[in-house]
Formats: sequence, structure tokens, C-alpha cells
Amino acid sequence: MPFRASVLTLYPEMFPGPLGASLAGRALERGDWSLEARQIRDHGIGRHRAVDDTPAGGSPGMVLRPDVLAGAIDAAVRPDDERPRLLMSPRGRTLDQGRVREIAEGPGVLIVCGRFEGVDERVIEARDLEEVSIGDYILSGGEMAALVLLDAVVRLLPGVMGNARSGHAESFENGLLEHPHYTRPAVWEGREVPPVLLSGHHGAVEAWRREAAEQFTARRRPDLWAKARGDRS
Amino acid sequence: MPFRASVLTLYPEMFPGPLGASLAGRALERGDWSLEARQIRDHGIGRHRAVDDTPAGGSPGMVLRPDVLAGAIDAAVRPDDERPRLLMSPRGRTLDQGRVREIAEGPGVLIVCGRFEGVDERVIEARDLEEVSIGDYILSGGEMAALVLLDAVVRLLPGVMGNARSGHAESFENGLLEHPHYTRPAVWEGREVPPVLLSGHHGAVEAWRREAAEQFTARRRPDLWAKARGDRS
Repeated sequence: MPFRASVLTLYPEMFPGPLGASLAGRALERGDWSLEARQIRDHGIGRHRAVDDTPAGGSPGMVLRPDVLAGAIDAAVRPDDERPRLLMSPRGRTLDQGRVREIAEGPGVLIVCGRFEGVDERVIEARDLEEVSIGDYILSGGEMAALVLLDAVVRLLPGVMGNARSGHAESFENGLLEHPHYTRPAVWEGREVPPVLLSGHHGAVEAWRREAAEQFTARRRPDLWAKARGDRS
Repeated sequence: MPFRASVLTLYPEMFPGPLGASLAGRALERGDWSLEARQIRDHGIGRHRAVDDTPAGGSPGMVLRPDVLAGAIDAAVRPDDERPRLLMSPRGRTLDQGRVREIAEGPGVLIVCGRFEGVDERVIEARDLEEVSIGDYILSGGEMAALVLLDAVVRLLPGVMGNARSGHAESFENGLLEHPHYTRPAVWEGREVPPVLLSGHHGAVEAWRREAAEQFTARRRPDLWAKARGDRS
């Protein structure tokens, strides 16, 4: 069965959005994955379908009610549903390529998009939501984070990239940032492609790329570099 | 003059996309910011408007040509354009809320969205592009990253959030993750809102939130916690 994504949101019109174009969009059309965006407000309370209320203890903003969100989650998952249930939130564990790979190898994913100030903590505990952050910055809601996570996951699904990435070392896949890239023209605005890349010596090219990736990673991301060296020693 | 965003992309149809809805969309309609998506392919080469070529030194995938991308950049910026020029790339400096705030305080931003294997290194140097990464994972292109960056920036622009966030401590703004949130009902599925939050004692509520935020940050993100403690000592 293809990878199945369900997104719980107050803005279902944001989906598939940019995921409808390019690689992910073509894969969606082919049925390599499926996407449903479910409106949390359908489980809102009363005539106005209220979904939020003021924070206990006071403060500006509104908080998503636990009963409303639990209703939306319970309607979206079957009892035997083994997909991870994520809540996109700046308080979550930071997403990395390893977690992306794990999710891509599974049956699919349920993603809850927070809005307003946040989500009532009790529903996170009671429905066992895994809080995931895409980075240390604040978004207007979880929707943009869900799009990012799905884009990262979908490109790893079988058939989506074809053989475009077969055997190719990308950033993070080996703990390093990628080496620099060059293409035609060989000279542009007085700047040359490094001659070794035009030498035709495969071994020399590989050695140059490896060293360039290491030097660049050490300079730009000492945190990754320390980890890559630690893993190897 | 309102904040001005220009995005260089092979998929202009992805914009404004999700930025056309909710907070950012209403702000766009009001003219609190402007967005133009420019097609890199308009500066492509020959009858087929080629934008990429094979990597020097070999390897799968394609690389964006420096001449094509420079043409697109040069057409998008005036000589007196002081906006930062970003290239969304997993090799970039990792975006954080501090950099988001800096960008939001400036005149706008030019964002180049990479695709394929990457962008010829020479255009990054020659056009002084600042490589920015939104996190340690691989996307199918820079478009999704550009949407995230713009969403984070736009919500900080004057007038966009109204007074919703006035004086309120968010995740990262004080170096900590945010405290948990609760709202009605006071008891749900046998789970209570912490009584202190219903006590009406403002000082006790603040103390509880501070301690909860510290404990949560220390447990979930020891890296942030170490930094927050270092900043204070």
C-alpha cells in the first residue's frame, strides 16, 4: 500500500499546495503516495464550531481545545493505524534526515498542525503525539512545517526520484555537507571550474570532493564536523 | 516602503501558495508586504531555455548554470538594492529566530531557490549569495524552504500579528522552549488543568510557567538549555 499522509489543519486549502507541483506532485498523481487534509473545525463545538479557547492562567492568544483536537484525531485514525502521529511544534524534537528516512520507510504519517498559541498539553499526552520541530524559528502555524516534512519524506519514497540519487552522497547522508558543484561554462566571468574536475581522473575527482566537503563542513558547521569525526574514530 | 520579497525559482506557481492564506495572506492583501516570484527559466539558454547542465567531474543529477542564475539575479535587483540575497540550501548556515528577526527589520529579501543537485559555486561567490538552511534534512528544492523563511519573517512585520504577541514570551525569544498550554475544559478524559493555572495568582502562574519551560527545555533540548544558562551566568 502506498505511503498515506493525513494532515489535520484549520487550513486544508493549503494542501497539497506546493506539494502538487514538481516531483511530489507527479508522485501524488501517479499514486506513489496519498494525501488527505482534514478540517479540525469539523469537530468544533456548537453552532460556531469553536476550536480554541483562552489559555488557563491568562496570557494573549488562544489555545486549541483538547476535546476538539482529540475528536479530529480519533476520526482520522483506525484502531489498527500504525502511522506515527506528529504534532508540528517549535517545542518538538528537531527534525533531521535520519527521522525523515524512518518516516519514509513506514506506512505513512498523521500530522497535526498547531495554530494560535499552541495545543492543550493533555491531548499531546492522551493521544501520544510526537512533537516535531523543523527548526529554531517560529512559524504562523504547523502547516508550513507539515509541507516541509512531507516534501522531505516523499522524495525518498520508492519510485519518486527514479535513479536521480542512486549512489550519490547528499548533504547529511554521510554526516557531511555536500561538496561544491560546478557545470558549464568552464570559465565564467573570469572564474574557472577547478581543473581537477575536468581532468577525467575519477579517483582524483572523488578525493577532491571528499576533501572539499570535509573542509567546508568543518568551517561552516563545526557541530556536524565534530559528530562526523566522532562517528569515525 | 513595505517589506519586499523577490523569489527566483523554476516553480513560480508555488508562490504565494500557502502564504496566500491566513495571517500572511491577509497581510499580503493589505500591502503590509509584497511578493514577486520570478521564473529563472526566462534567463535560460537557447530555444529550449536550458537552465542546467551536467556536473563537472561527473555524477548523477544536474547543476544550475552560473550564467543563467546570474542573469536572473541581475534582472531582479537594482543597483541600489540593499536587500540580503539568500540561497536556500542544505549547505547553508542554519536559520534561527535571530536571523529571522534581522531579515524582518530590513527592507526585504531576495531568495534564490536551488533545484537539481545544486547551484554552480561560482555564482554564489560572484553574486555574494548567503546560503541559508532551514534544517538538517533534504528537500526537493529551495521553494519549500523559501516559504518557511517568508512565513517566519512576515509574522514579525509591523501590523501583521496585531497585538496577538505583544509582550508574550514565545519559544526561542528568551532562549527557552515555551511552557505547556492548557484551556477549557478544566477536566478532560480525567486529566486536569494544573490547579495553579486556575488559582488567579498571577505571580504563582508566572513562576510555574517559568519553571515548566526550564524543565522542559533542559529535558527536550539540552543544547538550548546549556546556551540559555550560559547567557545568564
